[in-house]
Amino acid sequence: MLDKKYLLPKDAVNLLLEHLKFRSLPGEIIYLEEAYDRVTYEDIFSPEDLPGFHRSTVDGFAVRSMDTFGARESSPAYLNMKGDIPMGAIPNFSISQGECASIATGGMLPEGADAVVMIEHVNVVSQDLIEVLRSVSPWENVIFKDEDVKRGEIVIKAGKRLKPQDIGALAGLGIGEVKVAKKPVVSIILTGDEIIPHTEKVSPGQVRDVNSFTLSGLAVRAGAVPIKMGIVRDDYNEIKTRVDKAYEISDLVLITGGTSAGVKDMTAKVIDELGSPGVLFHGVSIKPGKPLIGGVCGGKPVFGLPGHPVAVYICFELFVRPVIEHMIGLQERKVKRLIKAKMARNLHSQSGREDFIRVSLEERDGQLWAIPLLSKSGLIMSLVRAGGIVHIPSELLGLQEGDEVFVEVID
Amino acid sequence: MLDKKYLLPKDAVNLLLEHLKFRSLPGEIIYLEEAYDRVTYEDIFSPEDLPGFHRSTVDGFAVRSMDTFGARESSPAYLNMKGDIPMGAIPNFSISQGECASIATGGMLPEGADAVVMIEHVNVVSQDLIEVLRSVSPWENVIFKDEDVKRGEIVIKAGKRLKPQDIGALAGLGIGEVKVAKKPVVSIILTGDEIIPHTEKVSPGQVRDVNSFTLSGLAVRAGAVPIKMGIVRDDYNEIKTRVDKAYEISDLVLITGGTSAGVKDMTAKVIDELGSPGVLFHGVSIKPGKPLIGGVCGGKPVFGLPGHPVAVYICFELFVRPVIEHMIGLQERKVKRLIKAKMARNLHSQSGREDFIRVSLEERDGQLWAIPLLSKSGLIMSLVRAGGIVHIPSELLGLQEGDEVFVEVID
Repeated sequence: MLDKKYLLPKDAVNLLLEHLKFRSLPGEIIYLEEAYDRVTYEDIFSPEDLPGFHRSTVDGFAVRSMDTFGARESSPAYLNMKGDIPMGAIPNFSISQGECASIATGGMLPEGADAVVMIEHVNVVSQDLIEVLRSVSPWENVIFKDEDVKRGEIVIKAGKRLKPQDIGALAGLGIGEVKVAKKPVVSIILTGDEIIPHTEKVSPGQVRDVNSFTLSGLAVRAGAVPIKMGIVRDDYNEIKTRVDKAYEISDLVLITGGTSAGVKDMTAKVIDELGSPGVLFHGVSIKPGKPLIGGVCGGKPVFGLPGHPVAVYICFELFVRPVIEHMIGLQERKVKRLIKAKMARNLHSQSGREDFIRVSLEERDGQLWAIPLLSKSGLIMSLVRAGGIVHIPSELLGLQEGDEVFVEVID
Repeated sequence: MLDKKYLLPKDAVNLLLEHLKFRSLPGEIIYLEEAYDRVTYEDIFSPEDLPGFHRSTVDGFAVRSMDTFGARESSPAYLNMKGDIPMGAIPNFSISQGECASIATGGMLPEGADAVVMIEHVNVVSQDLIEVLRSVSPWENVIFKDEDVKRGEIVIKAGKRLKPQDIGALAGLGIGEVKVAKKPVVSIILTGDEIIPHTEKVSPGQVRDVNSFTLSGLAVRAGAVPIKMGIVRDDYNEIKTRVDKAYEISDLVLITGGTSAGVKDMTAKVIDELGSPGVLFHGVSIKPGKPLIGGVCGGKPVFGLPGHPVAVYICFELFVRPVIEHMIGLQERKVKRLIKAKMARNLHSQSGREDFIRVSLEERDGQLWAIPLLSKSGLIMSLVRAGGIVHIPSELLGLQEGDEVFVEVID
């Protein structure tokens, strides 16, 4: 154990990342169809020019631009129709002086042509003759063969999460397989004598498993594969056996619960025994989530999360997600959805501690108000009821009623 | 065909929604484990009180609050230890005057106790005796048995997309199955003589399938199940046969392509023949995406999307997504991720038309700038390169360099 001082969240995350290799997980090659939302493992280069041919951007007539110079309504340029260019075909003729060919948007320019006159600027006189009513400059209404992408250019960098439109672009380049970071396997262990599976009948004093459901969903969203390892009693040997197994089969271990002080120390001890350096911090300057344990054991991150469902959510978003993103080599920052609102009540905070307050949002007289949800109730429901979270930074002593705040929308 | 006038996007969407029943798809009952991101079909009520018992929120000692009144460091209250309350158990004793019991966070209060003194405010004198150094009010540090949720209360309303923390809360209530809206099946047909599958070698004049990949991913994100129906040549009978099949097996049909004017009319004709009322609009006052066709046939929405990949993306987000959300009964509005930036260039727009400009974001001297991407290039790559989209409303004639804009982040 390196440190027992309470760190600020940012420092705690950095401490974890310092002990973890960036992109620590291997890459794997998968079909493009499976690559949605996966994170690229290496830069992807274009295997060819795109569109690959000079392409019309309008419906009209392919021409030699110089044949249209000076053309206007009162003095059109007359051009002979050489033919029609079918979509998807290579024109089997070329354009010489005084000639043109009809072409659709996306069609390939014939040899000799260097511009396209829009259909709106042409009078079709006969099957063989058109009047051009306006001049075009060289390469007007044409995309060059390598204007979209050049062969050898980087199309998508390593560490990018592939969006639908990225997958579309890769398909357009004929790329059928991509190398992406392996999904980290995240095992989830619940500890606590009072926890029972959600399908069992609850007796007074017991509570059902909430956290394995929330954590599984959050892990999937972060790009990981969750494995539920079940519920363990507050017993050192039972916890140790289950955690050892989880450590063996997964890339990251989450242990939740251990609400009483004695159990928390058991979790820390079990983590320390998994491998070096072990526990990096035990407690963070944050509310909720203060009792968080963070460690790295033999290159794998292991967390001891508080048992409170709200703290579990906050700790996952602040600590576990960045660690997962580091492991898969994600290079983008998530842009938060923020809404401006006014605080509906005074809120006290402690200097040196970061507070995360669940609020509901309510519109009154055209003004959006952030109404803090009481932390005492809200064991399970406050995250369901909350529309967002207000962050009070460590240097503030609280917020006043009417203060303008940015609410992070929970989605 | 009801109307051929060019509508504003909002009016076009409303016209579609007017012809579609809200929550037109049936509900289905699924296991909670499968319900992440699904949309609830009906209100979910709590089957019981939660936590279901009076629960301590701190580690400490359960007491009768009146026994602590007046207690302070200089004059502590002395209480006899009645016993220890194990986690998850019903206390097998009650607390009488002058008695207390040790209890952990989450433990069940014994009969007779009405508050918990935090461990920090107690001196343990012996195994049988403690000194209470501070008084507690009735129900201090206690959650009431129905404080989180009352039996019969609505926990989650119909039309809500279930987040990880919602699933966690439902598990906490012992709810193992939920009724959700069926996922709409969205079929995707590409038309165009120039389109080839992404794995095939491309000849000049041809382009690979981009849109089925982008649309599949967008459909999944919107909560639908995409079915790729392949590529059809620009032939009326071929298009009609394929669209008829798609209409039969799916809840929503997307037909992309048909870049030339003649083909566009074919698509409209095919849609009109599917069922009543048929095409509702042909063309929208929007750039890119103007040639969009929107229709409803026998209660199923059918779209003719332009073939340009950027227009496909914009049209899906503006028209198809709201229709899907209407069909599954989603009651929430998506909160956009917006970033404030300054326009790096003048942009011309047309009054009465809504423009959507792809921009990249660049920081210079501490100021974020939105740099418009040239629309001419960008056939496939501009959505990959774009960081966001700037919306120019129909009443504006453009934007000036230096204007402050909100950029919607593409994610």
